[in-house]
Amino acid sequence: MELDGNAVLAKALREQGVEYVFGIVGIPVVELSMAMQAEGLKYVGMRNEQAACYAAQAIGYLTGKPGVCLVVSGPGLLHVTGGMANAQVNCWPLLVIGGSTSQDHEGIGGFQECPQVELSRPYCKYAARPPSAALIPMHVEKAVRLACYGRPGAAYLDFPGNLLTAKIAEDAIPMQYAHPAPPVPFPDPKLVEEVAQLLCAAKRPLVIVGKGAAYARSELQVRQLIHQSNLPFLPTPMGKGVVPDLDPQCIAPARTLALQKADVVLLLGARLNWILHFGRPPRYSSDVKVIQVDVNAEEMHNSVSSTVAVQSHITPFTEQLVEVLAKKH
Amino acid sequence: MELDGNAVLAKALREQGVEYVFGIVGIPVVELSMAMQAEGLKYVGMRNEQAACYAAQAIGYLTGKPGVCLVVSGPGLLHVTGGMANAQVNCWPLLVIGGSTSQDHEGIGGFQECPQVELSRPYCKYAARPPSAALIPMHVEKAVRLACYGRPGAAYLDFPGNLLTAKIAEDAIPMQYAHPAPPVPFPDPKLVEEVAQLLCAAKRPLVIVGKGAAYARSELQVRQLIHQSNLPFLPTPMGKGVVPDLDPQCIAPARTLALQKADVVLLLGARLNWILHFGRPPRYSSDVKVIQVDVNAEEMHNSVSSTVAVQSHITPFTEQLVEVLAKKH
Amino acid sequence: MELDGNAVLAKALREQGVEYVFGIVGIPVVELSMAMQAEGLKYVGMRNEQAACYAAQAIGYLTGKPGVCLVVSGPGLLHVTGGMANAQVNCWPLLVIGGSTSQDHEGIGGFQECPQVELSRPYCKYAARPPSAALIPMHVEKAVRLACYGRPGAAYLDFPGNLLTAKIAEDAIPMQYAHPAPPVPFPDPKLVEEVAQLLCAAKRPLVIVGKGAAYARSELQVRQLIHQSNLPFLPTPMGKGVVPDLDPQCIAPARTLALQKADVVLLLGARLNWILHFGRPPRYSSDVKVIQVDVNAEEMHNSVSSTVAVQSHITPFTEQLVEVLAKKH
Amino acid sequence: MELDGNAVLAKALREQGVEYVFGIVGIPVVELSMAMQAEGLKYVGMRNEQAACYAAQAIGYLTGKPGVCLVVSGPGLLHVTGGMANAQVNCWPLLVIGGSTSQDHEGIGGFQECPQVELSRPYCKYAARPPSAALIPMHVEKAVRLACYGRPGAAYLDFPGNLLTAKIAEDAIPMQYAHPAPPVPFPDPKLVEEVAQLLCAAKRPLVIVGKGAAYARSELQVRQLIHQSNLPFLPTPMGKGVVPDLDPQCIAPARTLALQKADVVLLLGARLNWILHFGRPPRYSSDVKVIQVDVNAEEMHNSVSSTVAVQSHITPFTEQLVEVLAKKH
Repeated sequence: MELDGNAVLAKALREQGVEYVFGIVGIPVVELSMAMQAEGLKYVGMRNEQAACYAAQAIGYLTGKPGVCLVVSGPGLLHVTGGMANAQVNCWPLLVIGGSTSQDHEGIGGFQECPQVELSRPYCKYAARPPSAALIPMHVEKAVRLACYGRPGAAYLDFPGNLLTAKIAEDAIPMQYAHPAPPVPFPDPKLVEEVAQLLCAAKRPLVIVGKGAAYARSELQVRQLIHQSNLPFLPTPMGKGVVPDLDPQCIAPARTLALQKADVVLLLGARLNWILHFGRPPRYSSDVKVIQVDVNAEEMHNSVSSTVAVQSHITPFTEQLVEVLAKKH
Repeated sequence: MELDGNAVLAKALREQGVEYVFGIVGIPVVELSMAMQAEGLKYVGMRNEQAACYAAQAIGYLTGKPGVCLVVSGPGLLHVTGGMANAQVNCWPLLVIGGSTSQDHEGIGGFQECPQVELSRPYCKYAARPPSAALIPMHVEKAVRLACYGRPGAAYLDFPGNLLTAKIAEDAIPMQYAHPAPPVPFPDPKLVEEVAQLLCAAKRPLVIVGKGAAYARSELQVRQLIHQSNLPFLPTPMGKGVVPDLDPQCIAPARTLALQKADVVLLLGARLNWILHFGRPPRYSSDVKVIQVDVNAEEMHNSVSSTVAVQSHITPFTEQLVEVLAKKH
Repeated sequence: MELDGNAVLAKALREQGVEYVFGIVGIPVVELSMAMQAEGLKYVGMRNEQAACYAAQAIGYLTGKPGVCLVVSGPGLLHVTGGMANAQVNCWPLLVIGGSTSQDHEGIGGFQECPQVELSRPYCKYAARPPSAALIPMHVEKAVRLACYGRPGAAYLDFPGNLLTAKIAEDAIPMQYAHPAPPVPFPDPKLVEEVAQLLCAAKRPLVIVGKGAAYARSELQVRQLIHQSNLPFLPTPMGKGVVPDLDPQCIAPARTLALQKADVVLLLGARLNWILHFGRPPRYSSDVKVIQVDVNAEEMHNSVSSTVAVQSHITPFTEQLVEVLAKKH
Repeated sequence: MELDGNAVLAKALREQGVEYVFGIVGIPVVELSMAMQAEGLKYVGMRNEQAACYAAQAIGYLTGKPGVCLVVSGPGLLHVTGGMANAQVNCWPLLVIGGSTSQDHEGIGGFQECPQVELSRPYCKYAARPPSAALIPMHVEKAVRLACYGRPGAAYLDFPGNLLTAKIAEDAIPMQYAHPAPPVPFPDPKLVEEVAQLLCAAKRPLVIVGKGAAYARSELQVRQLIHQSNLPFLPTPMGKGVVPDLDPQCIAPARTLALQKADVVLLLGARLNWILHFGRPPRYSSDVKVIQVDVNAEEMHNSVSSTVAVQSHITPFTEQLVEVLAKKH
């Protein structure tokens, strides 16, 4: 059977586990939106690309699989640079798919002609134009994978009009594997022991529950930690819900004081950026000891020097910490 | 007297002839919007940066002086990449002014921290961050000048919070000149003669009046040309109004036929891009002779080979052509 | 007859008037260098891409037609970013041709895989990857044209291995026109008159002969101007040779004094950048009157305010000035 | 005591553990090279920036601390884009330090003026211009840290002439911490068990020892694994030396056959890129089972689907695998 690029792309998205598309259609992606729906993807028509892009990444954050934001060429794509940057900085999986000018119109003033791959690059972990219909599934797999793996973020795939209408025999398309759930870095057990000792010795410890804990779905482990050791905690705006705000250990109503007085702060997937006052005096004690737990090595020691810095997914770290602390009590 | 960066910037804008500002305020540009109004600039508060940017460039196109689009850092700026690209491609003068994170918060997770100058670069003729309050007027002059001179387009200036609040003694600011109206390239008289001959010899000549003629305010000259020689004309969408649509020489109702049958096409500031079907068959005769008149050398011969290509502002070219044709009749 | 991409490219270069190639070959451009030689291009094998790129642009400056710099993928291309930037800033025509990874190896760790078009963009007037063998001649024409037209500079064309080996029937390649010599902007006659008056009224006039006069090949006109009016002149480093250094009007031995004492400075294709001390005191008198003549509107009033700024090619400007001055004497 | 920017920078580099500098000096970094030597850094004067940059990153690879490549503005910096890209792709720590035009000459044609931070961005993990002498140590710490942490790579710091000569009282410079050795991700023990089972069940297992194992300094652990289980191994070009080539388990002389016949391949810090034929038939069996161990999640499943993908530093992974296998034997 012969497929066109639209059908190959829609099928590849489904095979990679994509479920939702938020878009605004026009030349050359009208037929693509129909192929997506024919393939069973949930398509939501939006009124402005900005909103479409923020919606797609919210789904990505909630489900761990990127939502697709579908846009037309030129202004369609450029209206989502803000959304892509947000996904990238917030570490939310997102896949933007943009239609673009037919390649035979490049260089002569094609409709909304725009070098979309390179303009997306600063806002993406992966940006590419598949060179042929046969290679669409391979690039879709990579884009979805990179949006989810490691530090999650945005990916962009570019589809010139002529690629979307190109025909290919179904059996000429190489089989493409789907990737499993993202790999998970575990903590160094010696560092978990150090963390336990610091917490046990602390007079005014504080756990800050961040977005990393929420995205890791570590609710069970974090609640266990909080309750087992009677630790006060503070959620960041995106860390809310990991432990309910009404939990008696929640120190949010005394946020300012809690930050100022803490002698040991345990950051579970939270960054010491402007929201947390960079971890610096006068919002923190000048001799506060900071413990960072984060999947990203690059976040360590970024505005203050952490006493312990553990590169780990929040779930296995907290699990191990609970275990070590249990033995100490 | 001591001024802060906000006041220096507002004053510099007024001294360079800027009149209008369309913006959405927030950290760190709230006080800037007030300084602008205190300086007598007309400030229009908008609801979305996208619209603010399109409004600012429309004023720029209509008046020949850039309107300012004022935005906050991060998403504020990124929401106008589409607008900047539009100004750049459409050759409309525009000045985007963006607030940005205070420089002592750079690298540690500042509020909406974002490398705004470099992200604006692909969409601008000029993008810079003034290094001190004293040098703000110099960069404002350059940004306004480059937005207007040569091929008009977009400029971006970046103002970290600490620059806007920096104090400087008024007499420590170097005096900054204002630039005159943009220079105007004149045509090679030999080419004007060639154009006249081609038009006189043509059986089915057609004048296409483009945006370049409109921006040049060549109404008088173009109407004279059309009427003196009884030439049929077609306005592009942005070339409308140079000669009224109801003028009896207007061939718009028979656009398709006019393009197909013309043996000589005179382009007055119009590009043979997708709107004009690239100047190629079957929308044009395969032996049509094309005459291009444009301020940009780079637009010449871009999708078809022009028989005559004249780098010139539309006004002096048309004036000279009218004169030469008058002698021939 | 069937051609491969190498042959199509070599032929297109010759048809656009390219004569010289400076290169270092390797995967995937070995066969391309042979096709170029088979087509009659003069190929010079170099030892380092840096030197190759500076050589190619020197030929471009001397002949007005871009020399080609041929490089391999990845480091091959990156070693010429300095050369491309030099060509761009110096306004010298240059065409860089880079081989790149085969497209089916993109995204999986291909040999020296590198997004070469976008990495070249900041250093180029035009950067593109032809999408098919059939469209190679069209992109070559555009790259050569943009390197020469308007403000000359660099262009980059990218050729993945699979495009160079792709086969196409010769008669399936669209005919591509060659462009004529670049268009030339003429001066506003009223401004030429103003310049003449300024020069006649000057007590200590100075002509600075720049690269623009040299590239314009205005030797005849500039010498006539210098001798007719007995004007002292100073060549910039790249403006040397337009009038011989041994000409009695040459003021170079008293450069410092000449700049400081001049009351009217006529810049013929020279920029008031660091080489000319920005045109500012104490290297110039604070009330010096500057006259700028330049093809680029964007160069006008860039570090000081010019009294007269003429957007024009140096040759017609100087011709007209000589004529106007002759009438005055 | 008062320091200038040169001294602050040199001191900060030493405090962050930098030992070697390879450079070519000129405006504005001559005095900086002297301040570096005064501070005890080992300075090596080179002949071409290309070589300087490759040397600096080789030191970085060998010692785990970035070497510095010191360059002048404009061409000085651009001549190392190839080197920076190499460091980035090869995951070698590198710190490029570039002098740049004095900020009051920006926009008016300063000497070798060039937007160096943004031009370095595509080749770097971190690129910044410290906004003041006081903040130099903070940016140096971050640049050195990011060059080493997580996936190692390149960093760029930009120093305009006026910043290098700016004076500051020593006690006005905020104290800056130094970061410890990079954090290390540990493997999921369940995956180590799966790997052990796969190896035990394999008929023709093959260990490929890559650059990741070499950079991790896992010689002891890898040799133990190889010898304990009698596993044949193949070093990649950069993985040579982890186990000596003359080790009887080294299968390099039968590389082609070993790759083709292996039924289980264990990748220790090696990528299945072009060097390893993308892990695909006909160079590998079509039913080969691939085990990936890598610090980068983004490298997993990149050209083929791995049966097990472990995000881990090579040392703790191999240690644990040796232990698990010991229990199985």
